Amino acid sequence: MKERLYLFDTTLRDGAQTQGVQFSADEKRQIATVLDQLGLDYIEGGWPGANPTDTAFFAAPPKTRATFTAFGMTKRAGRSAANDDVLSAVMNAGTSAVCLVGKSHDFHVTKALGITLEENLENLSASFAHIAGQGREGLFDAEHFFDGYKANPDYALQCVHAAHGAGARWIVLCDTNGGTLPDEIGRIVTEVIASGIPGDHLAIHTHNDTENAVAGSLAAVLAGARQIQGTLNGLGERCGNANLTTLIPTLLLKEPFASQFETGVTLEALTGLRKASRMLDDILNRVPAKQAPYVGASAFAHKSGLHASAIAKDPSTYEHVDPATVGNSRIVPMSNQAGQSNLRARLAEAGLTVQAGDPALARIVERIKEKEAQGFSYDTAQASFELLAREELGKLPRFFEVKRYRVTVERRRNKRNEMVSLSEAVVVTKVGGKKVLNVSESQGPDGSDQGPVNALSRALAKDLGPYQAIIDDMQLVDFKVRITNGGTEAVTRVIIDSEDGQGRRWSTVGVSANIVDASFDALVDAINWKLIRDKATA
Amino acid sequence: MKERLYLFDTTLRDGAQTQGVQFSADEKRQIATVLDQLGLDYIEGGWPGANPTDTAFFAAPPKTRATFTAFGMTKRAGRSAANDDVLSAVMNAGTSAVCLVGKSHDFHVTKALGITLEENLENLSASFAHIAGQGREGLFDAEHFFDGYKANPDYALQCVHAAHGAGARWIVLCDTNGGTLPDEIGRIVTEVIASGIPGDHLAIHTHNDTENAVAGSLAAVLAGARQIQGTLNGLGERCGNANLTTLIPTLLLKEPFASQFETGVTLEALTGLRKASRMLDDILNRVPAKQAPYVGASAFAHKSGLHASAIAKDPSTYEHVDPATVGNSRIVPMSNQAGQSNLRARLAEAGLTVQAGDPALARIVERIKEKEAQGFSYDTAQASFELLAREELGKLPRFFEVKRYRVTVERRRNKRNEMVSLSEAVVVTKVGGKKVLNVSESQGPDGSDQGPVNALSRALAKDLGPYQAIIDDMQLVDFKVRITNGGTEAVTRVIIDSEDGQGRRWSTVGVSANIVDASFDALVDAINWKLIRDKATA
Repeated sequence: MKERLYLFDTTLRDGAQTQGVQFSADEKRQIATVLDQLGLDYIEGGWPGANPTDTAFFAAPPKTRATFTAFGMTKRAGRSAANDDVLSAVMNAGTSAVCLVGKSHDFHVTKALGITLEENLENLSASFAHIAGQGREGLFDAEHFFDGYKANPDYALQCVHAAHGAGARWIVLCDTNGGTLPDEIGRIVTEVIASGIPGDHLAIHTHNDTENAVAGSLAAVLAGARQIQGTLNGLGERCGNANLTTLIPTLLLKEPFASQFETGVTLEALTGLRKASRMLDDILNRVPAKQAPYVGASAFAHKSGLHASAIAKDPSTYEHVDPATVGNSRIVPMSNQAGQSNLRARLAEAGLTVQAGDPALARIVERIKEKEAQGFSYDTAQASFELLAREELGKLPRFFEVKRYRVTVERRRNKRNEMVSLSEAVVVTKVGGKKVLNVSESQGPDGSDQGPVNALSRALAKDLGPYQAIIDDMQLVDFKVRITNGGTEAVTRVIIDSEDGQGRRWSTVGVSANIVDASFDALVDAINWKLIRDKATA
Repeated sequence: MKERLYLFDTTLRDGAQTQGVQFSADEKRQIATVLDQLGLDYIEGGWPGANPTDTAFFAAPPKTRATFTAFGMTKRAGRSAANDDVLSAVMNAGTSAVCLVGKSHDFHVTKALGITLEENLENLSASFAHIAGQGREGLFDAEHFFDGYKANPDYALQCVHAAHGAGARWIVLCDTNGGTLPDEIGRIVTEVIASGIPGDHLAIHTHNDTENAVAGSLAAVLAGARQIQGTLNGLGERCGNANLTTLIPTLLLKEPFASQFETGVTLEALTGLRKASRMLDDILNRVPAKQAPYVGASAFAHKSGLHASAIAKDPSTYEHVDPATVGNSRIVPMSNQAGQSNLRARLAEAGLTVQAGDPALARIVERIKEKEAQGFSYDTAQASFELLAREELGKLPRFFEVKRYRVTVERRRNKRNEMVSLSEAVVVTKVGGKKVLNVSESQGPDGSDQGPVNALSRALAKDLGPYQAIIDDMQLVDFKVRITNGGTEAVTRVIIDSEDGQGRRWSTVGVSANIVDASFDALVDAINWKLIRDKATA
């Protein structure tokens, strides 16, 4: 019989403290849905009343299977719990669980709050009695618990017992400054349990300031704690919180945890982990961390030739878990045998069946190597990869030819004497033997200039004759630029994401020392891919 | 009396296995110098004979105080150590230490090598006897040791004893697949020591596949191992190796390690840690990880208002170590009191002395908030920050005014019927009441088109009248583009790095929906900053 281990997500609360991160209420809703699909037990949404976003989010909360939780702080001294307006705003959000941060380190009580140790204990018991009295589930975020315990173990224990005695369901031991090492966490959790708080009422909340947030959480579980708090992709203040994206597969797949514990995350849901991680990066417009455990693009990339050839014999030689369990995939250099079967699998995804040993495979590998040396990258730009492969396979239809283009960007004063920019593009194509000239300027929804790439994209897609109906529902949805080294010179790599009316999304790549040129090539690839997918006749 | 703990760096060997990383011999030399300055005990340079870069690097090795180490593999079956050409190439590099990888997991001996368990033992003892016989220090990288020990503890121990008995100075216990959790590492290291290999002959080599590489290394040290292998910034195959950038400050600053151990890194050298980490990112052209423990830009960033005000009373309230110890600095929101003193310090760096309480400080903070909401970022763009502050302080000289510009990018066939691109820019400025028109195309050293930003930069800097002599030695050295969200619209943020003949390097920022416009603004800032620094008269 496995023991139940609870997972508490604080991406929307502590994760929102990440430098540079600012969620909208809508984004919080999207993220909550993904967390709920994964199978988290608790989703902490933010602090109702603390800022307009959180207030709006709690006013129309997401419907989740997980226990939706509001965050706040314990009541202040000198008033009752019912009369504390900050606490009332939190209670009024009406969530079934309420998590309150409060002090457990004597130094912080007297230094930061400026109240007596007794007053703090009274604030704790009154706050959690109030929550329990309203029929809600209370969680006490014992801030700086580990530092407090090291400085004054008696007082730290009095604090957590005050909350526990007053009806808090969970005592959350927080390593707020992130400085406590795993061994110490394990020892202190053991001592807290010995003091009378049962392990199945204890949660662990760590930060990654020494790169030990995951290890500290695991140490706490081994010592008896039965709830882990963390965030998706390890978001959080300073160096981040414990990374649930790493903890979840470790708990489900690795011993001694897999045999001993059950969580709300199923093995089936686990296969959506990589996608969940990417979704968050997409919302934050962040480049996904390649080396992220389990979900990173490099997590199962075998660069060494020795490793890759052993992998071909048996993947367990250099993989601690199967990448498919977390929805990730293996990357092996395409230049060896294992690589070729990888390449065939990738071609099959694009609907191109190629027999093993087909000499075109070696030619495709060669072309990719050449292009990658110039700065191209086909890891994400699957659509451009497909076009390149089709060319080598003699399966690339020619729909149109670009004869020339010209784009102009001007900054000057307009008639109201304001400085304005204006971009204008002319593209000349040949479609079905007929020359077509198109011109477009670039204007956003508010009439403002969107720049040369937008103008080119509009001019190119304005009239492609018989193909026009097919590309009309295309839209440029993202545009990423990297300066990279192609050969000896720095070149610009542009990756364009396009979307169509059927919700398909595809990525194409262009490389040039000239950023406009690189963008244009990626645009042309995007249109060609769409025409092929929609079975246009060349 | 503290015990000596040795630090072994493998950035240049295992770190070079990072997906996307390819060091040149020159870059390896630069990195070795930085590692040596930090105080590492061993620097592993690569595998002499395995590829042209490593062969070239070992042919002209860096002069280091650290023990420079060559990597290779134990001799193959069916020949003597002296007659193994792969091992000979490693020995011929002439390094005082030699680290050889070999098998200790029965499954790998029979499956990957296809030899008998006995043959493998013979290869181990013969190889390390050969190294010791030549008066070199031998290290045995026991590949897959932990997995091997779990599968067949007797055989794994026979392997490490074979190497140890034959004279290997260090037995390196490798968690090659990165799947062993810290508790297990601690337990197994204890058992290896009990089997007769003294702890001060044991090293630990972990990988970060479960985000526990640092924790696993610390667990091994607590169990008695006295050498840690790792890499700068946690480079390495798949998810990377143990991150020395995190381990070093943890060992020097945190208990129980600080009191118990001495390493080759002094507290003074530790203050260069952040710079060493950035230097490696620069060489790799990587964006530094903001949330990296100790050295990341966010590692001491306090976003929460409650935290920031407590920090103002006493930094230890929310910091586990002083950021200065690792050469990093605190970031507090500029909008509160602590933030203002931070702002004044930043202004002082730019040579601008502002009294506490000066109302201009609040205005600067306000402007920065406004601009950051539009997508600007002043974290790195110190030069643009300085210009903004000068404007609010009434200390921004006006050298020239840009009346208008126009840039054209064309792609068309040239007279040899090749597709070529051509960028041309016209910039009209007013300098000292005089209108100046400049035009430039954009050509790289080989005559190829470098794009619109390059053309604009050339036209702008072509003739600024009396200021021309000052800006003649300026050069655009880096150009970074990010798509970000300014307000409701996606905008482009461009950061330009410039350098001058005196070796000064500065960064400026521009933001616009139009990438050319954003770049132009950053260029203008770069020129203005240079004119101010060189005391041009307006």
